[in-house]
Amino acid sequence: MPSYSVIGKPIRNIDALKKATGVTLYTNDMKMPGMLYGKILRSKYAHARILNINIDKAKRLAGVKAVVTGKDIIPRRWGILIKDKYTFAVEKVRFLGEEVAGVVAVDMDTAEEACELIEVYYEELPTVFDPVAAMQEGAPLVHERIEEYERLGSIKPVPNSNICPHLKLRRGDVEAGFQQADYIFEDEFSTQPLSPSPIEPMACIADVDAFGNVTVWSTTQAPYEIRDFIAGALGIPVSRIRIIAPPLGGGFGTKLGVRGELACIAMSQSVRRPVKLVFTREELFTGGIVRHPVVTKIKTGVNKDGTIVARKCTEIYDTGAYADYGPHVAAQGVRTGGGPYNIPNVWVDTYVVYTNNTTAGAMRGFGTTQPHWAIESHMDIIAEKLGLDPLEFRLKNILEEGMACPTGQVAHAVGLKECLQGLKEKGDWKRKKGEKKKYSGIGIACLHKATGTPTSSSAIVKLNQDVSADLLMSATDMGQGSNTVLAQMVAEELGIPVEKVNVVLPDTNVTPHYSSTSGSRTTFVEGNAVRLAALDAKRELLKVASSILEVEAEKLELKDGKVWVKDAPDKAIPLEILPMGTRFTAGAKYPVIGNPIIGKGYYTTAGKEAISDPETGQARKSSIFWMYAADLAEVEIDPDTGQVKIKKIIAAHNVGKAINPLLLEGQTEGGILMGIGDALYEEVVWEEGKTLNPNFGNYSILTFMDTPEQIESIFVEVPHREGPYGCMGIGEVAMVAISAAIGNAIYDATGVRIKELPITSEKIFNALREQRESAAR
Amino acid sequence: MPSYSVIGKPIRNIDALKKATGVTLYTNDMKMPGMLYGKILRSKYAHARILNINIDKAKRLAGVKAVVTGKDIIPRRWGILIKDKYTFAVEKVRFLGEEVAGVVAVDMDTAEEACELIEVYYEELPTVFDPVAAMQEGAPLVHERIEEYERLGSIKPVPNSNICPHLKLRRGDVEAGFQQADYIFEDEFSTQPLSPSPIEPMACIADVDAFGNVTVWSTTQAPYEIRDFIAGALGIPVSRIRIIAPPLGGGFGTKLGVRGELACIAMSQSVRRPVKLVFTREELFTGGIVRHPVVTKIKTGVNKDGTIVARKCTEIYDTGAYADYGPHVAAQGVRTGGGPYNIPNVWVDTYVVYTNNTTAGAMRGFGTTQPHWAIESHMDIIAEKLGLDPLEFRLKNILEEGMACPTGQVAHAVGLKECLQGLKEKGDWKRKKGEKKKYSGIGIACLHKATGTPTSSSAIVKLNQDVSADLLMSATDMGQGSNTVLAQMVAEELGIPVEKVNVVLPDTNVTPHYSSTSGSRTTFVEGNAVRLAALDAKRELLKVASSILEVEAEKLELKDGKVWVKDAPDKAIPLEILPMGTRFTAGAKYPVIGNPIIGKGYYTTAGKEAISDPETGQARKSSIFWMYAADLAEVEIDPDTGQVKIKKIIAAHNVGKAINPLLLEGQTEGGILMGIGDALYEEVVWEEGKTLNPNFGNYSILTFMDTPEQIESIFVEVPHREGPYGCMGIGEVAMVAISAAIGNAIYDATGVRIKELPITSEKIFNALREQRESAAR
Repeated sequence: MPSYSVIGKPIRNIDALKKATGVTLYTNDMKMPGMLYGKILRSKYAHARILNINIDKAKRLAGVKAVVTGKDIIPRRWGILIKDKYTFAVEKVRFLGEEVAGVVAVDMDTAEEACELIEVYYEELPTVFDPVAAMQEGAPLVHERIEEYERLGSIKPVPNSNICPHLKLRRGDVEAGFQQADYIFEDEFSTQPLSPSPIEPMACIADVDAFGNVTVWSTTQAPYEIRDFIAGALGIPVSRIRIIAPPLGGGFGTKLGVRGELACIAMSQSVRRPVKLVFTREELFTGGIVRHPVVTKIKTGVNKDGTIVARKCTEIYDTGAYADYGPHVAAQGVRTGGGPYNIPNVWVDTYVVYTNNTTAGAMRGFGTTQPHWAIESHMDIIAEKLGLDPLEFRLKNILEEGMACPTGQVAHAVGLKECLQGLKEKGDWKRKKGEKKKYSGIGIACLHKATGTPTSSSAIVKLNQDVSADLLMSATDMGQGSNTVLAQMVAEELGIPVEKVNVVLPDTNVTPHYSSTSGSRTTFVEGNAVRLAALDAKRELLKVASSILEVEAEKLELKDGKVWVKDAPDKAIPLEILPMGTRFTAGAKYPVIGNPIIGKGYYTTAGKEAISDPETGQARKSSIFWMYAADLAEVEIDPDTGQVKIKKIIAAHNVGKAINPLLLEGQTEGGILMGIGDALYEEVVWEEGKTLNPNFGNYSILTFMDTPEQIESIFVEVPHREGPYGCMGIGEVAMVAISAAIGNAIYDATGVRIKELPITSEKIFNALREQRESAAR
Repeated sequence: MPSYSVIGKPIRNIDALKKATGVTLYTNDMKMPGMLYGKILRSKYAHARILNINIDKAKRLAGVKAVVTGKDIIPRRWGILIKDKYTFAVEKVRFLGEEVAGVVAVDMDTAEEACELIEVYYEELPTVFDPVAAMQEGAPLVHERIEEYERLGSIKPVPNSNICPHLKLRRGDVEAGFQQADYIFEDEFSTQPLSPSPIEPMACIADVDAFGNVTVWSTTQAPYEIRDFIAGALGIPVSRIRIIAPPLGGGFGTKLGVRGELACIAMSQSVRRPVKLVFTREELFTGGIVRHPVVTKIKTGVNKDGTIVARKCTEIYDTGAYADYGPHVAAQGVRTGGGPYNIPNVWVDTYVVYTNNTTAGAMRGFGTTQPHWAIESHMDIIAEKLGLDPLEFRLKNILEEGMACPTGQVAHAVGLKECLQGLKEKGDWKRKKGEKKKYSGIGIACLHKATGTPTSSSAIVKLNQDVSADLLMSATDMGQGSNTVLAQMVAEELGIPVEKVNVVLPDTNVTPHYSSTSGSRTTFVEGNAVRLAALDAKRELLKVASSILEVEAEKLELKDGKVWVKDAPDKAIPLEILPMGTRFTAGAKYPVIGNPIIGKGYYTTAGKEAISDPETGQARKSSIFWMYAADLAEVEIDPDTGQVKIKKIIAAHNVGKAINPLLLEGQTEGGILMGIGDALYEEVVWEEGKTLNPNFGNYSILTFMDTPEQIESIFVEVPHREGPYGCMGIGEVAMVAISAAIGNAIYDATGVRIKELPITSEKIFNALREQRESAAR
């Protein structure tokens, strides 16, 4: 085991003090000279033709500087994977909340008032809200000719339908598998729309100059990725666009992709002044994105001894009116469909379906929470029917090092066995499963998740004359702590304290390329680039030290702010005396002058090997790493109300290497809380496409009051051969299987199996009543 | 001769359109959230003890947020080379204009009004304004114990005096030289205080956060250098300070060093909010810096044939109340003292003298204009006495390749002969010298100038997915065009058009180290780093291309946006298809993904070899390069008014390689105009330390109306072995010898020799009257 100075230490988030004291400036805190305010008028219909828009009254309101509609800007459809959307609706609207017009005014209130003065004349069109219905022939088409839309070639819409696309995973011969199986189990599960609710809403400031060059300050998780998307939408080269990403107050996926930026750019262009656009909480619900509601049908063939021999899944993802990240979200779903098990025959069909609902997009878990809800509930159902312990049943089937994943990739750095073993011991599984107290239950769930692959990352480490380092890279810290973890890597390699590493704000003009902070990959992917950049700077430092000490660089090492001669520790010199740039020091004879020191690093994950075969979903390196984890939940149910009390959650993750156990715990705990919200409370309620609860009064996210009595984290460290220091990610998976573990615990406590998320008290109460009534019959 | 695509081309300044259309934001255009405004109360006495400061009334004024005096901040003296100054005066003031207090208020007017309400009680002290008098024993001491001040070890003050320091150049045996000489000539010349007058005044915004971390947006020429100085002044590490340098509206030296930044930081710290401080034009005169007034005594020994055998110079630099860059300015003066000639015996004594005048600092020419005024006027006087043509006399004595400079350095890339030859031909020297028209005259002057050495520079070139490049470096473009020239180097090496190079604003947190944009060295020193960074990026690009083309990288070249196979031009591929980061392209099958491309480069000029021996001023590499030039002026004098009309100026510079002839011409023309101002119009008029003309109404800088009828530039290209593409600098030297060339032309026209700059009409008129009167006697 290598010994580290900074890696593996529970270091406090380097941004914490600034955030806690209000020093951190968020996008909405910013003010540009001459800045105006924008507001978006949104559609009041879920599907309607726009007959006419009268902006005269709005324009006449004092303080209004411009009103922009779809007619005022070059009608160019854009999209992330499929170009299916206009910045402001042209011809028709496809969901209740779609952008119809934008007002620019001297302040927010005036802009809002002007929106109300815009008269839009609609002709209503037939709607479709149920994704299963939307798949049927003859269903109203949300997009008339999706097959004609420009798109990434890998996304194949089904012509003359709402399906875009149909994704497949094929492994072995699933029908033959079912033939061999002793038992067949079939189930259907569904998940609700969720709103990924960061406390900081979406905000941006766009500034389009007289030459059409665009600068955007945005609450984005992926400055480089949206630069690419915006360039495509505007039809200008990326270098004419600059995206600056101030610190984020949470992201959870909703800050991936282009949200208000294009509308804001159009508004700025109309007035040639900076324009700020901030979404209200309501707009985040109706004009932002939701987590895909998914219907999952699952069928599993098992032998008497508990060996799973075949599994078939059908997953229907409701992507709402526009595709957004939908096809990529569903691609994670299709990969995940078999579960983290060693199953020879797997068949998954995943459909992404357009409806007139709010657009669905990326959310923490990126399409994997929904199938895990199905798979892991289904696993418990099977175990019970076979009379097996659910934990032992999983242990029997889980993936292990060297086995084949459902995508055909050889499993590496799995550690699921260790995770389950950990839960067994820490969770006192056997005793608690044995000593059944009424209305108390315990449940577990396993999970696996791929990360976005291929991707590319880079970093620059620039040293200052006081032997501090500036880290330039474009990963965004949304609160998850990536700045801290990446700074630790720089500190480790340079032998300096982490306080001496300054992380520069992502800015596409200055910080180097990183695809996107998503898919739990930053510590791994950007981490590799950062580590290489630090090592490059170290090499330069040792070169300088070598010439001063007159010792070959290979014989030197950096530690504790000094350069050490390996064989002669008394020869150590402090880094401060090495020249790096020009340093005037009073008392010194002359300014100290030497080469400034810069390190650079790149890391790109597998290219062609990551591309799945479109017919089978098989790929040798479908993901640069897979995350594996298992969760345990203990619950107590109040039979009179159906209320669930979470007594304990234990989360066991294989993190490869815990770079910062403190932040890992924080991330795990946050994910668990979000998972509890998913399991028990959160649901965006739609009625004919209208969101009925677009606010925190009626949409319940967890508060500190709802925190379970006990949360424990287990970090398994089965290292990944390519991860920096062996590490892997955890950002999303902390929440992915919580709902299933809780669902299984609730079943354990009550015998009630709810198959539609969330498991509200009402559902439990009704089921318990039903149970009592049927027992009485 | 290598053939270039972009180098050597007359490309328009890449910032020109943005500046001309008002898109460029200068420091004063910026506004930070919560920003307040600062104003400095300045001393009304040239030398006085502060008895008491009553700020009560000022603090009570509505809108005033804070009043800061020397007592309110830790009394830490700071300085550039000598720590001789407090941010706000402590105990005493040493010049009329010194900072006594700072007011922070909601707007500028309120801050100004509050300044008037501050009551300062002074006790006047004896003053000294004449530097020659200040050198005498018993003169009032401006600083009581300069020898106790912290300073760079190379700066040696004379204890118990106003001299700081006395610098020496010693070469050969000057007294023996005079013994051998056939003739001895002695003269005395002087120069006036000038105000380096950029149109944009000094402005800054300081923001000190709750943790004492400092961010400053400043009109600085040298963000890294002032970061170092500010860190020294505040006693905190450089990494806790961030300097951002928005585009500058001119610099000319006055934006070197710390001007209002420290006062602004203290004011921001007092309110924990951003504070903006903008100097008025008057403050630039009284609280900014002036060019050192210099008295030069010169003595030259010459043989009958015109060979100069010995020269002795005494130069007295009035540095005002504080040293600022004075000792370094004078160090350029001492090196320059012999003139650009091959003289075996040279002796120069240079004194930097404190007085109670306005502080003198860096100005275009950095201490070399003043001695050149003396030397080149003196050269013409000698030539006339010996009956030699002034141009031939210079040609006989000028430095040539391989000869020893006065500092002992071996002369390289001189080109002075070619410059003089150029003037002779283009200026039609012989005919015009022969055909003497009354009150018309022609004159020339030569010059040489070293650049600041040693220094260090670095650059990063980051490629975007559209094959554009972001150039990160910390040289500041003040209008001189360095951004354009450096962008040309990137474009040349990468085979892309210059429009595809984006130059990032200097920001010490993100752009890598560069010592300072001063000394005409940016194209050479930063240029080398930029070129190496571009070459490094090119190497990476070719590596990628090599793997795609399956041809070794050595066999590939970049040109016109393509990668060419040297032997097979039909195999060329466009750079756009090379992956560099992640690129989503509609229509493409998959996102194009590859390593992001970054290049880095460093360049550091000679270290120890650049350090002059303190007793002799000798150094093997006193300057990484020397600039050589010669100027020709044609004038016409109105004998009734003494008014001078400049008919023509021809400037011949050895630039090594003209990277951009258009910008070189612009720089030359700007320098010439400034030189004409120096020669004829500009003078800061002091009366007992008080500036009588601190505004453009009474201090005449040239307008377009004053442009000479004809300006011509000759660019000699004797390349420097270490310059990028052979180039050298020109920024300062364009003005250095103009005053002497004009002075010589006026003498040629009138027989009147004025020895004190500026040569006002009044002085000529009086001298002509004197001439007529003495002829009549």
